[in-house]
Amino acid sequence: MEKLQYNVLEKVNTPADLKKLNSDELKCLCDEIRAYIIDVLANNPGHLASSLGTVELTVALHYVFNTPDDKLIWDVGHQAYSHKIITGRKDRFHTIRTYKGLSGFPKMDESEYDSFGTGHSSTSISSALGMAIASAIEGNNTRQHIAVIGDGSMTGGMAFEGLNHAGVSKANLLVILNDNGIAIDKSVGALSHYLTTITTSSAYNRLKNKIWDFYGEGNKGRKQKNFFRKMGVTIKSALVKQSNLFEALNFRYFGPIDGHDVENLIKILGKLSKIQGPKLLHIVTRKGKGLKEAEKNPIVYHAPGLFDANTGKQVVADNDNKPLKYQDVFGYTIVELADKNKKILGITPAMPTGCSLNIMMEKMPNRAFDVGIAEQHAVTFAAGLAAQGMVPFCNIYSSFMQRAYDQVIHDVALQNLNVVFCLDRGGLVGEDGATHHGVFDYAYFRPIPNLTIASPLDEHELRNMMYTAQLDGKGSFVIRYPRGGGVHVDWKKPFEEIEIGKGRCLKTGHNIAILSIGHIGNAAMQAATIAENLGINVGVYDMRFVKPLDESLIQEVSKIYSHIITIENGVLKGGFGSAVVEYIADNKLPVEVYRMGIPDSFITHGSLRELHKDCRIDTEAIVDKICEIDKLIQKR
Amino acid sequence: MEKLQYNVLEKVNTPADLKKLNSDELKCLCDEIRAYIIDVLANNPGHLASSLGTVELTVALHYVFNTPDDKLIWDVGHQAYSHKIITGRKDRFHTIRTYKGLSGFPKMDESEYDSFGTGHSSTSISSALGMAIASAIEGNNTRQHIAVIGDGSMTGGMAFEGLNHAGVSKANLLVILNDNGIAIDKSVGALSHYLTTITTSSAYNRLKNKIWDFYGEGNKGRKQKNFFRKMGVTIKSALVKQSNLFEALNFRYFGPIDGHDVENLIKILGKLSKIQGPKLLHIVTRKGKGLKEAEKNPIVYHAPGLFDANTGKQVVADNDNKPLKYQDVFGYTIVELADKNKKILGITPAMPTGCSLNIMMEKMPNRAFDVGIAEQHAVTFAAGLAAQGMVPFCNIYSSFMQRAYDQVIHDVALQNLNVVFCLDRGGLVGEDGATHHGVFDYAYFRPIPNLTIASPLDEHELRNMMYTAQLDGKGSFVIRYPRGGGVHVDWKKPFEEIEIGKGRCLKTGHNIAILSIGHIGNAAMQAATIAENLGINVGVYDMRFVKPLDESLIQEVSKIYSHIITIENGVLKGGFGSAVVEYIADNKLPVEVYRMGIPDSFITHGSLRELHKDCRIDTEAIVDKICEIDKLIQKR
Repeated sequence: MEKLQYNVLEKVNTPADLKKLNSDELKCLCDEIRAYIIDVLANNPGHLASSLGTVELTVALHYVFNTPDDKLIWDVGHQAYSHKIITGRKDRFHTIRTYKGLSGFPKMDESEYDSFGTGHSSTSISSALGMAIASAIEGNNTRQHIAVIGDGSMTGGMAFEGLNHAGVSKANLLVILNDNGIAIDKSVGALSHYLTTITTSSAYNRLKNKIWDFYGEGNKGRKQKNFFRKMGVTIKSALVKQSNLFEALNFRYFGPIDGHDVENLIKILGKLSKIQGPKLLHIVTRKGKGLKEAEKNPIVYHAPGLFDANTGKQVVADNDNKPLKYQDVFGYTIVELADKNKKILGITPAMPTGCSLNIMMEKMPNRAFDVGIAEQHAVTFAAGLAAQGMVPFCNIYSSFMQRAYDQVIHDVALQNLNVVFCLDRGGLVGEDGATHHGVFDYAYFRPIPNLTIASPLDEHELRNMMYTAQLDGKGSFVIRYPRGGGVHVDWKKPFEEIEIGKGRCLKTGHNIAILSIGHIGNAAMQAATIAENLGINVGVYDMRFVKPLDESLIQEVSKIYSHIITIENGVLKGGFGSAVVEYIADNKLPVEVYRMGIPDSFITHGSLRELHKDCRIDTEAIVDKICEIDKLIQKR
Repeated sequence: MEKLQYNVLEKVNTPADLKKLNSDELKCLCDEIRAYIIDVLANNPGHLASSLGTVELTVALHYVFNTPDDKLIWDVGHQAYSHKIITGRKDRFHTIRTYKGLSGFPKMDESEYDSFGTGHSSTSISSALGMAIASAIEGNNTRQHIAVIGDGSMTGGMAFEGLNHAGVSKANLLVILNDNGIAIDKSVGALSHYLTTITTSSAYNRLKNKIWDFYGEGNKGRKQKNFFRKMGVTIKSALVKQSNLFEALNFRYFGPIDGHDVENLIKILGKLSKIQGPKLLHIVTRKGKGLKEAEKNPIVYHAPGLFDANTGKQVVADNDNKPLKYQDVFGYTIVELADKNKKILGITPAMPTGCSLNIMMEKMPNRAFDVGIAEQHAVTFAAGLAAQGMVPFCNIYSSFMQRAYDQVIHDVALQNLNVVFCLDRGGLVGEDGATHHGVFDYAYFRPIPNLTIASPLDEHELRNMMYTAQLDGKGSFVIRYPRGGGVHVDWKKPFEEIEIGKGRCLKTGHNIAILSIGHIGNAAMQAATIAENLGINVGVYDMRFVKPLDESLIQEVSKIYSHIITIENGVLKGGFGSAVVEYIADNKLPVEVYRMGIPDSFITHGSLRELHKDCRIDTEAIVDKICEIDKLIQKR
C-alpha cells in the first residue's frame, strides 16, 4: 500500500489552522481526514462508519464556531474521531481506544474541546441546555451550545425530555440532528419513519428550499416572516401529511440538508450561529461515507475490527475450533427455547447485532422486537408482555441497564413478573472504557427484592440458566454474562434445570476456598491449578447465584475452610463479595474473607488483559492472593 | 353534616352494574362518586384532586369497554379512586392508604381490574403496548388496551419511547391523554404549551368538530378519508401554527374533547373501541372538579390531608412550636446559600411544592428550574450546568432518583462534577407504599465512585451538609433526608463546614456501640436512653457519611466496643450496614456486627409508625436488640 498524502491535513492541528483554509482546501481536508481515519482504523480497530459520516459536519462546525468557547457536544461520541483529529490530537490518534491512549469517546479531561463526556446515548441536549443556561446566567448571550445527535439517539426518552425543557427556554441551543437512518443497527420506530418521510419527499424539499431564505435568516419584516412561517408549515403539512414535530416543541426547524456538502454546511451554520434561542438543523448523512464496503454495510462497519484500507475488506479471523461468543450462545439458545415454548419473546433496545438477537429476529420476526434506543421502554414493555403470561427475554448491555433501573424495580420486580433479563457485556468490556464497563450490576441489582441474579461460569451454564428461567413460576430473573468468547468449542448440550440459589463445588481443597461468580470462575480454576503446582490445594466453588445466595453452601464451606476468597468481575462495594461478608457477619461464621473485584474508581479503557491485571482480578492476582493467605496460615 | 344519599352508587359495585344504567343515571352516578370521594377523603387523607378530575372518564371507560378482559392502565395511578370504587372495592374504600387497607395506587394483586400496578409516572404506554402485543400474538385482535396518562406524565421520556414503538406497531392501543395542565404542580415545558395551544384555539376546535364525523368513524371510502385526513391536518396547521405531534408519531389523534361530559365520552369511546391500531384521545379535564376549593387550588388539593367535606376547607394543624419539615429546611436554606453564592441554582423534576423548591422559585425565578417529570434530564441538565462552573442543587425524591441512575453515574460522577443531589423522601415514606419508599438509595449509590453520600441526623446537620457541599471542590455530593419533620423547633443556626467522611460520637458507652446514619440516629439515641434506664450503657455514633465511610472512627470504636449495631432507614442488602461489615471483614477487626434495616422484601403502605415497627427499625426494636446482645455478653 502506498503512503497516503495528507497535504492539507498536515497543516491542520487545531480549529485555528482550519480557519485559514479556502473552500477547495476545506473539501480536500475532508477527503484527507476520511482517508486518515480509514488508514489508521484499518490497523487499530475502532468505531469506523459513524466517524466517516460526520467529517464534513465536524469541519464545518469548527470552521464556523468559536470552539472551545462555543460548546460542542457529541451525543454517544463514537462519531467524534474527526473532531479529535482537528482539535490537537492528530498525532495520538493511532492510540485511540488503547490502554493509556486516546479514549474512543469525548472526555472532558482529555481536551478542552471535549465540552462534555459521552458514551451512552441521548444525553447531549440536556447537557448542552445546561451549559446554555449557565452562559445566559453569566450574561453571555453570544456563546453557542451545540448538541450533535443521531436519529437513533433521538428516540431515547431523555432526548425528548431535553427538547421539552429547551423549547420553553430562550437558550442559545443548536441541536443538529444527524440523520443517517442507522444507530448501530437500523433505526426503528415512528420517529424514524417520520424523518424518512420528511427527507424523501422531493416536492417537500424543493418547497422547503424556496422558503428557506425567508424562513432562515431572521432579517425580514415581522409580518412577512409570520406569513412564510405559516405558509411553510401549511405546505409541509399538505405534502408530508404530518407537520413538524420539532416545531410543535417550539424549536425553530431547519433542513433537511445534505450533511456532506461542507460549503453549504458552513453557509447555513453561519446563519444559524446568529439566531438566538433553541433551533434544530436536520442534516442527512451517510454512515460509512467514503468507504464503499462500509456504505454498503454500515452495521458491520460500525466497528469492523481490522480491515484492508484499500479494499475495505474485513480481515476475517479464523474462528474454527474457537469457542463461540457468549452473545451468540444466547442468540442460538433463545431460538431453540422459543421453538418449544411459544410464550418466549425476545426484546432488545437497538442492539440486535451486538447481542445476537438478530438470529431470532430473522427466524421469528413476530416474536423478537428491536424497540430502539429505549431501555426504559424495553423493560416496561417486557413487564406488560409478562403481565399477559408471556415470557420475554429482555437483552440489555449491563451498563445500559443502568438506564432502566427504576423500571426493573417498579414494573418488574415489585410485581414479580416473569421477565428474563439477559445482561450482556457484564464486567469490564475493554476498549470502550469507563462509560461502558458493566461492573455495577451485581451491586445495583442485589438490593432489589424478588430478583433472582445468576451468572454463568460457561456456555453450558448460560444455556441451562436460560432454560431454567423460562420454566413456570421463576419470577424476575437476571442472567449476567461477559463480552467475548466462552470456554467450550462444544457449547451445545442438552438443557438441564438448575436449582435456584444452588452453587456447586468445582474442586475441593484445604484451608482456602475460592467462591466465584460467573465467567471469572475459569480464572479461579486456573489459579487453583497453578497453586496446586506450588503445593497449595485450594477449593473452588462456583456460586452461580448472587441472589439468592447459596447460604447452606457457605455454611458448609465455612466448616471445611478457615479462609475464603471471593472473586467477581464487578465492583467490590455492594457486590457479590459484599453479599458473602454480609452473610458471614450476620451468622458469625468463624472464617476470614478476602474479597477480590473492581476497586472503587472508574476504570479506564484498554484491552481486557490489561484492565484485569490493573484491577487485580486476573489469574496471576488470584494466585498471589492464594500465596499471601497461605503464608499467613503457615505463620500461625 | 347530613348523611349523603347514594341512590345510584348503592346499586353499583362492578362494571356489570354500571352497564344497566341509563344516561341520566350515569350522570347521577358521577355526581355521587364525586361526593363519595370527597366524603371519604375528608377524614381519610388521600389523593383528592386527581381522582375528582377523572370520574366521568372512569365511568365511561368501564361502561364502554369490557374490563377486566380489556386492559385498563392508570398512569401514576393516584387518579384511580373512582376506578377502585366501581370495581368491587367500594366497601373498603375508606381504608385507602392505611395499613392493610386498599393501596393508594392500582395494584395487580388487589384486583383483576388493576391490569398493571403504577405509582411512578409515564409507564402506562409501554406496559399497555406490551399487553396489546401479547394479545395480538395470542390471536386476539378485539381486546382493547387503554393507557390513561396525564399531560404531566407525558413529558416523561419513557412515554415518548413508548409512543415511538407503538406508532409502528399495529397494536390495539388507545392512549387517553388526560390534559388538565397540572401534574402535582403546574405542568411545564414545550409539550404543555403545545397542548394549551391546541385546546384553547376555538376556531381549531370548531373545525375539528366538523371534521370529526368523517375523520373518526372509519366507515367512509378510502379516497374521501384520505382527503379529509389531509385537509384536517392542513387546516389545523394553518390555525395552530404547529401540526399534530402525535400524528407525526403515527398515532391517529382524536380530540380535544370535554372530559366531564360522560355522555359524549361514551359515544366517542364507543367509536374508538372499534378502530384498530394505535390511537390517542385527547380529553380536557379539570383537576379537583366538583370541589370549589380544589378547583381553585389543585396544587394544594392534590393531597390536602384532612378537610371539611362541606366547605372544602383544609383542617389546618397547629404547627406552632413544632419542628419544620426537612423539605422546608431545604427550601429556606438553599435560598440563604444562594444569596451568598451566585453559582448556586435549584432544579426539581416537577416537585416544587413537594420538595419546597417553590420557595426559591418565587424568590429567584431565574435561578430555580422545574424541568417537568424528567428525572433523567434533570440530572444531566445539572451536569451541564456544573460543567460550566455552576453549583446546581438537584432535588429528587429518593424513589424517583432510580429513574436517573445512569445519568448520576455517567454524566455526573464519572466526570466528578459538582452537582449536589438532595434526596428528599429517603427511607420509608408511609402511606404511598411500595412504589414510593426511598429505601434503596444508600445501596444503589454506594457502588458509584467519586460520590460523597451524606445523611443528616437533624436539621442543623442538613443545613451544614448543604453548606459544605457548595464549597469549592467538593465534587459529586448526595444529601439524603426523610419525609416529614425534623427534631428542632430552632432549626436555623449559623453554618459550619463538616469534614467530608467524618462521623461523630453522640454518646459513649460500654461493650455495645450503635453506628447510625441519618435521622434514624434520633431513634438510636432514644433507645440508648431507655437502655441506660435498664442498666445498659451503649455508645451511639452518628456516622454522617455512607461514603466515604469514617474508617478511623470504626477502628476506634472496634477498640473500645466488642459489639456493633448498625441502624439505617434503608435496605440491608448493600446499604450502610453492609459498608460497615465490608470494612470490618476487609480489616479483620475483632468485633461482632448486628445490622438493622429494611429486610429484603417490598414494604407495604401504612403509617410510618406501623411500618417502622414492621421492619423492626423503631426505637423499641433497637432497645430489644441492645438487650439481646447484652444478654449474650453477660453469658460469656
